[in-house]
Amino acid sequence: MTTRILVLGAGGFIGTHLCAALAAEGWDTIGFGRGERPAELAGVPGVSWIRGDLGDRALLRRALEGCRVAVHLVGSTAPAGAGTDPVTELQADLAGGVGLLEAVREAGVGRVVFASSGGTVYGLTGDGPVPETAPTEPLCSYGIVKLAFEKYLALHRHLHGLDYRVLRIANVFGERQRVRRQQGVIAAFMTAAVEGRPLEVWGDGSVVRDYVYIGDVVDALVRAARLPVVAHRVVNIGSGAGRSLTEVIDGITRLRRTHGARPPEVVHRPGRRVDVPRIVLDIARAREALGWEPATPWEEALTRTHRWYAAEAAEVGVLAAAG
Amino acid sequence: MTTRILVLGAGGFIGTHLCAALAAEGWDTIGFGRGERPAELAGVPGVSWIRGDLGDRALLRRALEGCRVAVHLVGSTAPAGAGTDPVTELQADLAGGVGLLEAVREAGVGRVVFASSGGTVYGLTGDGPVPETAPTEPLCSYGIVKLAFEKYLALHRHLHGLDYRVLRIANVFGERQRVRRQQGVIAAFMTAAVEGRPLEVWGDGSVVRDYVYIGDVVDALVRAARLPVVAHRVVNIGSGAGRSLTEVIDGITRLRRTHGARPPEVVHRPGRRVDVPRIVLDIARAREALGWEPATPWEEALTRTHRWYAAEAAEVGVLAAAG
Repeated sequence: MTTRILVLGAGGFIGTHLCAALAAEGWDTIGFGRGERPAELAGVPGVSWIRGDLGDRALLRRALEGCRVAVHLVGSTAPAGAGTDPVTELQADLAGGVGLLEAVREAGVGRVVFASSGGTVYGLTGDGPVPETAPTEPLCSYGIVKLAFEKYLALHRHLHGLDYRVLRIANVFGERQRVRRQQGVIAAFMTAAVEGRPLEVWGDGSVVRDYVYIGDVVDALVRAARLPVVAHRVVNIGSGAGRSLTEVIDGITRLRRTHGARPPEVVHRPGRRVDVPRIVLDIARAREALGWEPATPWEEALTRTHRWYAAEAAEVGVLAAAG
Repeated sequence: MTTRILVLGAGGFIGTHLCAALAAEGWDTIGFGRGERPAELAGVPGVSWIRGDLGDRALLRRALEGCRVAVHLVGSTAPAGAGTDPVTELQADLAGGVGLLEAVREAGVGRVVFASSGGTVYGLTGDGPVPETAPTEPLCSYGIVKLAFEKYLALHRHLHGLDYRVLRIANVFGERQRVRRQQGVIAAFMTAAVEGRPLEVWGDGSVVRDYVYIGDVVDALVRAARLPVVAHRVVNIGSGAGRSLTEVIDGITRLRRTHGARPPEVVHRPGRRVDVPRIVLDIARAREALGWEPATPWEEALTRTHRWYAAEAAEVGVLAAAG
C-alpha cells in the first residue's frame, strides 16, 4: 500500500522536481496547481494532477482526503517580486495558506511540510552563517508572509497537534527554473547568457547569497515528508557556503567558454534597497533533524544547470527558426 | 497652528478615548471608523470624523492628507475572537494595515503609531515580566497578525524611512469598554456583575494577565504620537503587575459589596487552549522610550471602571423599564 501525499504549488520549479522525486520513492503523489498538469510531469507514473486555486476550500478539502502529508510550496520561489503589491501577495499567499491549514485539520492530515525562505526571513544578518535561532526581521513582504505562516503552523501544532516541518530554503537554482517574476538570479543569468544578452547586475556584484541546488532541496523536502520524527521543526536548507554575484558570473563565464561560446557581457545597475548584503545559512541543524546535507558540488550543480539552459535555448532557437 | 493626526479604528474602545485626549492636547484630530461618529465623541471639539473602510485606499489617501501622524488601532481590542475565522481576520486587518502603509507613504505622513498586542505576540512566557526582546511565538491568529504588521512597519522604515512606534499593549480595561467579540474579561465580568448574572470563568481562575487602565494606555499613545525621537520603536505598555482572574473577581466582588449590591456568583468552565497561563509585561523600556509609566493604581482604575458599568446598567434598566 502506498502513502498519499499532496503537493501544493506543484506546477512550479520546486514542485515539478519534488513530485517526480516523491513518485520515484513510491509515494502516491497528487500535484495541485493553478495550471494544467505541467509538461515536466507528463507521463511521470505515480503523479496525478488536480487543477485548482488555493482559495477553493472545498476542492482543497477533497484533494487532501486520504493524504498522510501535505507539502506547501505555493509562492515558494518568487522573492524579488515582493514589495510591488504586498496586499495582493498577502491575500493570495498567507490567507490561502491559513485556509489550507483549516482544510488540513478538517481532512485529518497529520503532517505539513512548508517551504519557507531562508534568504529573506532573517533580514540583515552578520557575516557568519545564520542559525535558525537568529532574530527574524525580514526586510521584504515575501519574508514577512513566510514568517507569519511559520507562526500559523506553530499555532496549529499548539491547538490541534499538527506535525509540521519548516524548511527555510536558501536561493535555490537548477534545471527548469523559469525566469518569472524575477525568480532566481542564476536562472536570469543563465537565460541571458545562452541567449547572448548581457547579465544585469544590481549593485557591484559583492552581494553574497547561499545558492543551493534543486536536487539537494528536493532531497531535503522528501526527508521532511518521510521522517516520522524530527528533532527540530524549523530547519535551514542551504549549500553551506556563500557566493558573491561575481563568483556566479565567473562560473557561468567559464561554462560558456567550455561550451565554445562567447563569454557574457556584464552590465551594472544601481543596488536595490530590498537586497541584504549577505546571507549564508548555518545548516548544522538540517544534519541533525533530517540527516541531510547538500550532496552536489557547486561546479557540478552549475554545469548541470547550464546544460539545461543551453539545450532549452537551442530548442527555442529551432522552434523560432521553424516558426 | 495645530498639527493634524488621523486615528484609524477611532470608533472602538481605545479610539474614542484617544481622540478625545488628542483633541484636548490641541491636536487637529480626525477619527476614521467604519460606523457613524460615535456618541462618545459627539460634541467633542477638535475631533472631526470620517466614516469609511480601511480597504478604501482612495478615501484613506484623502484622509491622510496633511497629517503629521497616523495611529493604527483597527482591530486592537479583540484577541479572543481570533482563531474562529483567521482568514477573514487576515484579509481585513493585515491586508488593510499594509494598504494603510502604502497610503501613508503616498500621502507623505512621516509617523505611524501602532497598537500591537502585548498579551499575545509573545506566546508562552516564563514566570517573570516579558521584555520586548523576548521571542515572539504567538499562539493565536490575532497575535500573529499583530506581529506580522510590526514587521511591515520595520520594512517601511527600511525602504522609506518611516518613523514608526509600536506599543505592545497588555490587557486594557476601563470605562466604555463594550463586551463585543469577547473583548476584555473585566468588561465581561463588570457587565455580568451589574446585570446580576454569574461571572463565567474559563479554567480555575489562576490565569494571570497584565491589566492596564485605559487612561494610562491613552497617555502612552499620546506620547508615542507626540515625541519627536524615541529610544526604542517597540515598547511594552502594561501595568507592571500580574493579576489572576481570581484577584479580578475579588476586586469586583468588593466593589459590588461597597455599592450595596449582592456579590456576583462565579461559574467555572473548562480552560481554553488559546489561553496562555501567564503573561506580565516588563515595562522598563516604556519609561526610557516614552517617559511613561502607569499612573492609575489598580483599585482606583477598577473603581472608576465599575462606576461606569453600574451607571450604564442603571441607565439601560431605566430605559428598559420605560420601554
